[in-house]
Amino acid sequence: MKVHNFSAGPSILPDFTVEKTAEAIKNFAGTTLSLMEVSHRSKEFVAVMDEAIAMFKELLSIPEGYSVLFLGGGASTQFCMIPYNLMAKKSAYLNTGAWANKAQKEAKLFGEVVEVASSKETVYNYIPKGYVVPADADYFHITTNNTIYGTEIKEDMDCDIPLVADMSSDIFSRPIDVSKYALIYGGAQKNLAPAGVTFVIVKNEILGKVDRQIPTMLNYQTHIDGESMFNTPPVVPVFAALQTLKWIKEQGGVSAIQKMNEEKAALLYNEIDSNPMFKGTVINKEDRSLMNICFVMNDEYKELEKDFYEFATSKGMSGIKGHRSVGGFRASTYNALPKASVQALVDCMQEFKSTHVK
Amino acid sequence: MKVHNFSAGPSILPDFTVEKTAEAIKNFAGTTLSLMEVSHRSKEFVAVMDEAIAMFKELLSIPEGYSVLFLGGGASTQFCMIPYNLMAKKSAYLNTGAWANKAQKEAKLFGEVVEVASSKETVYNYIPKGYVVPADADYFHITTNNTIYGTEIKEDMDCDIPLVADMSSDIFSRPIDVSKYALIYGGAQKNLAPAGVTFVIVKNEILGKVDRQIPTMLNYQTHIDGESMFNTPPVVPVFAALQTLKWIKEQGGVSAIQKMNEEKAALLYNEIDSNPMFKGTVINKEDRSLMNICFVMNDEYKELEKDFYEFATSKGMSGIKGHRSVGGFRASTYNALPKASVQALVDCMQEFKSTHVK
Ligand SMILES: Cc1ncc(COP(=O)(O)O)c(C=O)c1O
Ligand SMILES: Cc1ncc(COP(=O)(O)O)c(C=O)c1O
Ligand SMILES: [Mg+2]
Ligand SMILES: [Mg+2]
Ligand SMILES: [Mg+2]
Ligand SMILES: [Mg+2]
Repeated sequence: MKVHNFSAGPSILPDFTVEKTAEAIKNFAGTTLSLMEVSHRSKEFVAVMDEAIAMFKELLSIPEGYSVLFLGGGASTQFCMIPYNLMAKKSAYLNTGAWANKAQKEAKLFGEVVEVASSKETVYNYIPKGYVVPADADYFHITTNNTIYGTEIKEDMDCDIPLVADMSSDIFSRPIDVSKYALIYGGAQKNLAPAGVTFVIVKNEILGKVDRQIPTMLNYQTHIDGESMFNTPPVVPVFAALQTLKWIKEQGGVSAIQKMNEEKAALLYNEIDSNPMFKGTVINKEDRSLMNICFVMNDEYKELEKDFYEFATSKGMSGIKGHRSVGGFRASTYNALPKASVQALVDCMQEFKSTHVK
Repeated sequence: MKVHNFSAGPSILPDFTVEKTAEAIKNFAGTTLSLMEVSHRSKEFVAVMDEAIAMFKELLSIPEGYSVLFLGGGASTQFCMIPYNLMAKKSAYLNTGAWANKAQKEAKLFGEVVEVASSKETVYNYIPKGYVVPADADYFHITTNNTIYGTEIKEDMDCDIPLVADMSSDIFSRPIDVSKYALIYGGAQKNLAPAGVTFVIVKNEILGKVDRQIPTMLNYQTHIDGESMFNTPPVVPVFAALQTLKWIKEQGGVSAIQKMNEEKAALLYNEIDSNPMFKGTVINKEDRSLMNICFVMNDEYKELEKDFYEFATSKGMSGIKGHRSVGGFRASTYNALPKASVQALVDCMQEFKSTHVK
């Protein structure tokens, strides 16, 4: 049976990425050696790293003066690297979810943290607006896509202080104006690569402004100087990331990807809205994520949630259980998820309705 | 042509590891999904993580009271995590190479560091002995195998204070008495897995004794509590590590592996010693590494070094160039390197001699 992979992360990758990586695991770039066995300093792998960085910059139109890094440790390690490198005295955070909250918690080890707004009280079911960012903070941190709750900040905001964004779960889902950000980061295990590599886009000039001594591996400057090869990089995930970047380019780049993502999301949100059995969990439509689509059963059908889960699973839907803090369902519709998979889920919802709604 | 992979790291892995990983990249555990696309919380991957930890403990006979962790960030990130977690005021380091030196440099950010001995003056061509470890230091750090210089501490030493060892390049090459160590760590990209996962064996009771606040991801306790799943682990490298552990068990465990490693090393060191064109770089035979075998051409043949490199390369020897700080040649003879590869290199050395020595 064809499985439709709606997993929130690690998550579906393009067939192209899977095939090319499987091939390279057997024989990398004609070396007769496995991608897992070659020196990261070999000319063949250095070429992969260089091309991955170049394509990353090209696809996101990253301006001069920014560096792209591939690191280890996951997005969670960035939560402490950001204040370590950027926070002299004070930072500001927007609390839009568990990840935003964890990021903010690490910053508190380094100085004063201002939470400009929070939607925690209502289980993060909207993106706060109309808050004030303190002008004297060293940076303002946002999470553009809240993987667990299905909310998304889909526009690049203007900010008078350096803007730092966790884009773990929406990088490459749309064009972004990188010039509005001081730093963008994320675990690559959603739209880009298997788990094990973290991307960072950093404006070079924001670094070197704090007094504290930074451990070598936690210092962005180390990795800029070492071109992500200061120590042994995660070779296989970086190779896979390059394949995904090639695939994105082949699709027509991030604008074309965005259009497909909008179509997929519209298809599913329309069904959620029109089907009397279901409702979305995000209260404002403009906050709805194009990447993680969260929904529950309407009150009168609540006791059928387990049945729907089993029915959809029997039809090949995989990874649609909502996070335990939200309940219900979450369908992650990342770049590589085909529209046909969304249609298959919509079909399940319609079939389920025809059985249960008189 | 068959390539003989003498790379220092990332380096040769068992064919079994390569094949099983390539298969799983296509279809993981019958899920029809790629290993790169499955949630790390899926029952299939949780089983991989659990089995990898259990086999790690079994193969090294790790006693009760120790945890095994699989982390990101490379061995280089451990250089700062160790003092962050273990150093209250003072630590002691043995300086046996560039990696030992880098580890020591990070500790200096956290307090007083005593270098108990160093072989730096002679490009680290021996392991210092007869030094005194300060009794009031919080731990003593050693690097058991010095990948660049080809020296190795092959016996588990007695130490009155907690002993911390970087075993990046000799883990699983021989049985070790884990009870003599407080913490053992290393990048997995030599004897275990592709780059991207770092192993840590830590004695639980040594933690929690420092006052400083430790960023969440840098705190070993986080990963003990989260069973290496606090955040998204490097899924593919952990899967590959498990395959290598299975292969080690199949070979007869680390004692059997040690015997093979001794045979391979003896074969090559004998040739280096007996062949008039070559000499080893390590001055004391007892310090010679079984993992990285470093040699140069004798003075009268010095100008033939490039010729030998080209000759050996033409015969399929890959990755035998010595590190630039040592020069000459380095043949890494990790667990997965077949004896036939060492024999092929020895054959090259003999053939080269028969052409050049009258
Ligand atoms: C928005 C966001 N930030 C951070 C993380 C944590 O990433 P990692 O597991 O790589 O540390 C996640 C993981 O799902 C996420 O979705
Ligand atoms: C003994 C030793 N320690 C540490 C390292 C650094 O490891 P990583 O590249 O994973 O940070 C190496 C890398 O070769 C090594 O050989
Ligand atoms: Mg697929
Ligand atoms: Mg509805
Ligand atoms: Mg092989
Ligand atoms: Mg000789």
